[in-house]
Amino acid sequence: MSAAAFAVSLRPPYYAVIFSSQRNGDDDAGYGGSAQRMVELAQQQPGYLGVESARGADGFGITVSYWETEDAILAWRRHLEHAAIRERGRSDWYERYELRVAKVERGYGWSRA
Amino acid sequence: MSAAAFAVSLRPPYYAVIFSSQRNGDDDAGYGGSAQRMVELAQQQPGYLGVESARGADGFGITVSYWETEDAILAWRRHLEHAAIRERGRSDWYERYELRVAKVERGYGWSRA
Repeated sequence: MSAAAFAVSLRPPYYAVIFSSQRNGDDDAGYGGSAQRMVELAQQQPGYLGVESARGADGFGITVSYWETEDAILAWRRHLEHAAIRERGRSDWYERYELRVAKVERGYGWSRA
Repeated sequence: MSAAAFAVSLRPPYYAVIFSSQRNGDDDAGYGGSAQRMVELAQQQPGYLGVESARGADGFGITVSYWETEDAILAWRRHLEHAAIRERGRSDWYERYELRVAKVERGYGWSRA
């Protein structure tokens, strides 16, 4: 996923999908290509607001995607290519994951600049 | 922070604090010690449910802490040592961050085991 990218200028309320996962270390190339493809597909979805992602050397990662409404999340969940990539995640890439849907109620940012 | 740790068995609704940050690359030892201390302090707070954290080699990281109520988050925010560590974060460790408070409405997990 596109790391080092902040999803900013979002005005609450909106929704967050918090996806925490443990990679198994296999098929880095396949995983990386599909992760990038997921972001491209998500960006085309109605109601998409942004994504933030980080994964450490131990293979534990967190990706948070942001959405205008719960309906936008449900539509993204039903996207056929997204569903196929999720299936590959379970068969090939992950040891475990947790997914949480949350309503963002407030937020703020800080920058050195 | 303690990476590769899932916060599990949480029953919605509960709250998530999503903290996305860009490290500046300075003072890894000081940062690491304080990050560990933050987790120890948080674990002692009433209403603390768990924490998940990941940071990539590019310095972009996401830490999500989970709490029973908004009041628990506000009390943690007022914790004096926590406030002092936050101040050091702005002076010494971060280029930028975004913090969001969200109410987790649903979630599920998957494990290969």
